[in-house]
Amino acid sequence: MIGAGQLARMSQQAAVDLDVELHVLAQRGDDPAVLAGASYRVGRPDDDDAVLAVAENAEVVTFDHELVPPGVLARLEGAGHQVRPSPQALRFSQDKLHARRHLAEAGFPVPPWAPVHGPADVADFAAEHGWPVVLKARRGGYDGRGVLLAEGPDDVPKDLDWGTPAAPTWLAEAFVDLATELAVLVARRPSGQSAIYPVVETNQQDGICVELVTPARVDDDVAREARDVGARVAEHIGAVGICAVELFVSRTGSVLVNELALRPHNSGHATIEANATSQFHQHLRAVLDWPLGATDLLVPAAAMVNLIGVPDVPEPDRNLPLALEQPGAHVHLYAKQSRPGRKIGHVTVLAGTVEEALAEARAARDALLSPGRSR
Amino acid sequence: MIGAGQLARMSQQAAVDLDVELHVLAQRGDDPAVLAGASYRVGRPDDDDAVLAVAENAEVVTFDHELVPPGVLARLEGAGHQVRPSPQALRFSQDKLHARRHLAEAGFPVPPWAPVHGPADVADFAAEHGWPVVLKARRGGYDGRGVLLAEGPDDVPKDLDWGTPAAPTWLAEAFVDLATELAVLVARRPSGQSAIYPVVETNQQDGICVELVTPARVDDDVAREARDVGARVAEHIGAVGICAVELFVSRTGSVLVNELALRPHNSGHATIEANATSQFHQHLRAVLDWPLGATDLLVPAAAMVNLIGVPDVPEPDRNLPLALEQPGAHVHLYAKQSRPGRKIGHVTVLAGTVEEALAEARAARDALLSPGRSR
Repeated sequence: MIGAGQLARMSQQAAVDLDVELHVLAQRGDDPAVLAGASYRVGRPDDDDAVLAVAENAEVVTFDHELVPPGVLARLEGAGHQVRPSPQALRFSQDKLHARRHLAEAGFPVPPWAPVHGPADVADFAAEHGWPVVLKARRGGYDGRGVLLAEGPDDVPKDLDWGTPAAPTWLAEAFVDLATELAVLVARRPSGQSAIYPVVETNQQDGICVELVTPARVDDDVAREARDVGARVAEHIGAVGICAVELFVSRTGSVLVNELALRPHNSGHATIEANATSQFHQHLRAVLDWPLGATDLLVPAAAMVNLIGVPDVPEPDRNLPLALEQPGAHVHLYAKQSRPGRKIGHVTVLAGTVEEALAEARAARDALLSPGRSR
Repeated sequence: MIGAGQLARMSQQAAVDLDVELHVLAQRGDDPAVLAGASYRVGRPDDDDAVLAVAENAEVVTFDHELVPPGVLARLEGAGHQVRPSPQALRFSQDKLHARRHLAEAGFPVPPWAPVHGPADVADFAAEHGWPVVLKARRGGYDGRGVLLAEGPDDVPKDLDWGTPAAPTWLAEAFVDLATELAVLVARRPSGQSAIYPVVETNQQDGICVELVTPARVDDDVAREARDVGARVAEHIGAVGICAVELFVSRTGSVLVNELALRPHNSGHATIEANATSQFHQHLRAVLDWPLGATDLLVPAAAMVNLIGVPDVPEPDRNLPLALEQPGAHVHLYAKQSRPGRKIGHVTVLAGTVEEALAEARAARDALLSPGRSR
């Protein structure tokens, strides 16, 4: 697995069940997956030699992030490695312009969009679609980074690296007046077998997922459309492993594709406890071309709340006993140093209703992020 | 944790969630917990120096087995270590005669029993309680080892090491005509907080647990009595951590205490998926004196089937993809070499009824133990 963050960490926990040896390419020797026991090599994901070295003797190469450049992926494939998902499929999560263009061409519902290579292009786009305009970096954005909301022309930075007309580095998107945001996880095997998870409802703040609940509080037909779009997207792009499809639901009821991730995803964390098969087990099964597990939600409702670092609590982990006073709180700590805005853990609660689950998960989070007593 | 078998392996998976560093005393560098990523030292559990060395810098010392001799435990405590459960409590799982004597004296229901130090004692016992007689080694037995069923005097081996009248090494027990066997897990903190799990029904063959289902298929009053006895036993002996109380239910409806384990236990494996808090998380929380989690069963029913090595399938793990064709099968492999009679993994299935869960779990087990195709 290229990358050794929390997704690799939780994949390692699943790998233990299946007696799969997970070997990770880590940035550092104390990355979350390394501390969880994955065997590792330290190196950069854009370093051909490091990526080839970690892949040596692996049955399959897969990913905890999108940061392996296409050239390195091509070398991996050229060296005979099984790369799952494929570089072609991965490009849908690496290059937002590529994803928008190809999904729009294939008839998938997406917000109005255009490549832009300067403020004039943005103004042209706004003239057609109105302000505000959402500016998205074509590559490398995550957790709200690489996304700008421009309410008017003055909000469009002049000094961005806009690329060239032939190779723009930003795209503009019409601002969607959101009713809610959904995510659908789809697992696919190389042989084509797929398994779709129930739709979850995510709560994003400043572009970062802060909470989710499942089942999503949307009409059945919206949930059905979301699952259908998710499954068709995963098939269209030839995804293998977990493919997370993030969706907008507009106030007019439209379901629009937002972004894709071709790996276990934050929107799937509640599957560890709430669903018949966790996304981490499922990803390993899918990339190894083993039969997929059932995806059904086992309980009436679940909520997952991210633990995101705050400035005045340098060591939230020390508050763990306080959080465990919530008897239904499943706390997952990532062994990451806390920094403001950084995802350092999550809490999942199962309950009779999403509201109960959310209240208990938030209480556990608030305890972890309190200046309270230490362990 | 002293020991690095499958219980330590699954404890390591739980420790990752809680960012607890589990350091284990392993017999070998490829023990199950070591392969799951626990940090380790190799040594014997009866070697004072090895046990003291692994305990160094640990906040708490706990156990995956009963094999640390009382003298070594005393040295650990003497050196100022927090030993949880305490040596006094552990003795109830290390010394069957001690457990029988003290539980009987305290008024807990146990089968008729007596210490025996030779065939004549066994004959005397049978004269009072009838044949068959169950002979149990006072120390060291597990998974059916150290237990003999004598249908008559000819079945009583002459050449056993019977100890001395003052220090007998075997005890005789009246054979209980069983309706069923139950197990109750109780978690207790040093501060006294406890949490009781729903009663499970175990299926033992030749003294080895082969299957369990939850909830137990017994009348409510039997289940209530079992929970009550379990909770009182755990409190009486001052258990800390998980205490598993195995119980007989006779055909006349009596609930009798069989054996105790003061550590995570095979009868709790289904808690990983089926209960609000797994026994492995709960054990860590209890020995660290952190608040305990909820214990309720989250689904209508669950079954757990052990994967026990058979002579003609040297590598059951290779059949994993076959087992995963059961969509609800949660397979846990222990990374142990398969040998006949050895527990090398387990499968848990959640379902609407115990019968459905059991059928699917057995199908997965049978696939793993088939000479079928390889991975």
